[in-house]
Amino acid sequence: MSEPSILRAREGDIAIVTFNRPRVRNAFNLSMWRELRATMEELSADESLRCVVLRGAGGHFSAGADIGAFAQERGTREKEDIYAEVLRESMQSIRLCLHPVVAALQGSAIGGGAGIATMCDFRVGGHNLRFGITARNLGIWYPYSSIDVLVQMVGTAVTAEILIEGRIFNGQEAYEKGLLSRLVADDQVEGEALALAARIASGSPLSARFHKQALRKLRGSLPITPEEERAAHGFVETEDFHNAVRAFLAKQTPKFQGR
Amino acid sequence: MSEPSILRAREGDIAIVTFNRPRVRNAFNLSMWRELRATMEELSADESLRCVVLRGAGGHFSAGADIGAFAQERGTREKEDIYAEVLRESMQSIRLCLHPVVAALQGSAIGGGAGIATMCDFRVGGHNLRFGITARNLGIWYPYSSIDVLVQMVGTAVTAEILIEGRIFNGQEAYEKGLLSRLVADDQVEGEALALAARIASGSPLSARFHKQALRKLRGSLPITPEEERAAHGFVETEDFHNAVRAFLAKQTPKFQGR
Amino acid sequence: MSEPSILRAREGDIAIVTFNRPRVRNAFNLSMWRELRATMEELSADESLRCVVLRGAGGHFSAGADIGAFAQERGTREKEDIYAEVLRESMQSIRLCLHPVVAALQGSAIGGGAGIATMCDFRVGGHNLRFGITARNLGIWYPYSSIDVLVQMVGTAVTAEILIEGRIFNGQEAYEKGLLSRLVADDQVEGEALALAARIASGSPLSARFHKQALRKLRGSLPITPEEERAAHGFVETEDFHNAVRAFLAKQTPKFQGR
Repeated sequence: MSEPSILRAREGDIAIVTFNRPRVRNAFNLSMWRELRATMEELSADESLRCVVLRGAGGHFSAGADIGAFAQERGTREKEDIYAEVLRESMQSIRLCLHPVVAALQGSAIGGGAGIATMCDFRVGGHNLRFGITARNLGIWYPYSSIDVLVQMVGTAVTAEILIEGRIFNGQEAYEKGLLSRLVADDQVEGEALALAARIASGSPLSARFHKQALRKLRGSLPITPEEERAAHGFVETEDFHNAVRAFLAKQTPKFQGR
Repeated sequence: MSEPSILRAREGDIAIVTFNRPRVRNAFNLSMWRELRATMEELSADESLRCVVLRGAGGHFSAGADIGAFAQERGTREKEDIYAEVLRESMQSIRLCLHPVVAALQGSAIGGGAGIATMCDFRVGGHNLRFGITARNLGIWYPYSSIDVLVQMVGTAVTAEILIEGRIFNGQEAYEKGLLSRLVADDQVEGEALALAARIASGSPLSARFHKQALRKLRGSLPITPEEERAAHGFVETEDFHNAVRAFLAKQTPKFQGR
Repeated sequence: MSEPSILRAREGDIAIVTFNRPRVRNAFNLSMWRELRATMEELSADESLRCVVLRGAGGHFSAGADIGAFAQERGTREKEDIYAEVLRESMQSIRLCLHPVVAALQGSAIGGGAGIATMCDFRVGGHNLRFGITARNLGIWYPYSSIDVLVQMVGTAVTAEILIEGRIFNGQEAYEKGLLSRLVADDQVEGEALALAARIASGSPLSARFHKQALRKLRGSLPITPEEERAAHGFVETEDFHNAVRAFLAKQTPKFQGR
């Protein structure tokens, strides 16, 4: 039987969640997204906790969605409607978690990996971090609810650099752009993330929970209808998406046609 | 008869407001919050003014709410409903002031002191500034309307550092995070604040007033009902709050239970 | 016949738009605002394009509205209602453009020139850039829809520095405040803007278009009524505005009365 792809540990009143597919830089397939949600929901229900730390095994946070699994899990409208819903619920489980969540960002936090990091309340990163969202390399459209979290954090201009340019930031750049709460040496990322979690845990948990939900609540509901949200899955019906995935898997550069 | 806790002076078309309880680092009790509101409303009604500068006597801006007065002024739901309303109106009197308001931040701007500073249109700070909101040290829930001003200024991630981590920034950090409009040597804070006020005063006052109200208006009304706003006073009914205030006054570290 | 005030060129799938009134640092009069809108709408309709670069001839981006033309084009309520509508549609034509738009900011980007830059998705600037909005020097009220774009990009505090203080930032300051996507040597501004456009053009155009419209859509509609928008043209009926324009043209310092 294989090792679980998400591990859990506890140090005092802090939970530590480890993404554990180091051979693929902790890339997420559908079942791992589901495991993340289940994990976060269980931790959220545990009122004895004060903080949650997310980290990746093997020196990387996460390379995002597992493109090798696309052929099976995505690629038709029907499959994408399911995949997108699982992804959305998984991302929201971090935002909705009762406790503050800290991301310990070593190595790569790319695509959905960067997406997970932006759902957290705090991000600690190292100088050699590679942070970016590569949806535009594959002809994917990033979901409205995840774009909105970025805009609320760093504004529209930095969000455009991330999504439209597809820029990959190193740690220093990510810090300057407001994407990291803290920048430290690479070998201190996990130590600093745990120290930050301990500081958070030393404060009033009811205050932390109130303030976390207040930040969500003040956003109000998004001006996006369910139909518009679903229309954003339409990229799976473009030629460009299918060609780009094929090119990626063949280690070729995709040629986009705009259709 | 004691000296007034808020002093007023005028230099040309600039009003200078001084918080004047230096023995408690200009901490605010209920009557001082009321005085601040009355002061700001009078200044706002004076159309001959062009700018208001807020400063603290004795080398500190303000240590925030006077915790020594909590036993008398806060601590029951009834008292807190009154206190929170006075605090809210006092904070809003800065935002609603007809004229631009500049905070001259020397020494400590902590808790409600930092809150006052964020209500201002401009913040000039020195390198040794200590800037932070310590509600989470006492089990207090920071009000929605004040959280919102922070989010509009610096985004959700920095607001989480302030409220959930309870981080105290020095001047350089506060500048990097977007909390200061200007960073100068400590002994130049007041001079630079006055120079900034003079620059503001040299421009069109009708433009300044239009632009100040436009920044408020573009936010729209908050997605928070009056009931939700009032529910946020609920922290006064938690054990943690009462224990933390007792611990603070006894110079002990509070132990939070989450209830 | 005079040269057109807006030039167009094309390099592969990138369109290059040049503001071409170098003798007045590419200041915009009414007909040039109309030309800008017509240009952007034509480029937006060309689905073979991948990116648009905006630049100025003669070493400056744009000095903004041509104050020499105010006597003819603005100054009465009737004229201002027309001018403001043309300006608004011209600014929106950049935001509504199907393709990502990059501003190459050399020299001055002042007033409406800075306004154009903020409508773009990306801003590349040089160290000697002068970037600022000088509406308050003339008693003008900056339009709500343009203020909103600034707030969404850099937050309320930096917007106050721009509009209420009327601060002119150099390149380094503009970068630190989040107004520039990239800061380079002055003689590399255009090269870097084109390189950025090429990087954008290498990604999925359907992703770029989706992400660009998503950033607009997530803002929702502004909490400003058409009546409030129109009331913001009221500055043309103030004495201060007329005096300030006269003073500017006579190279004198205006004295504002607040009426």
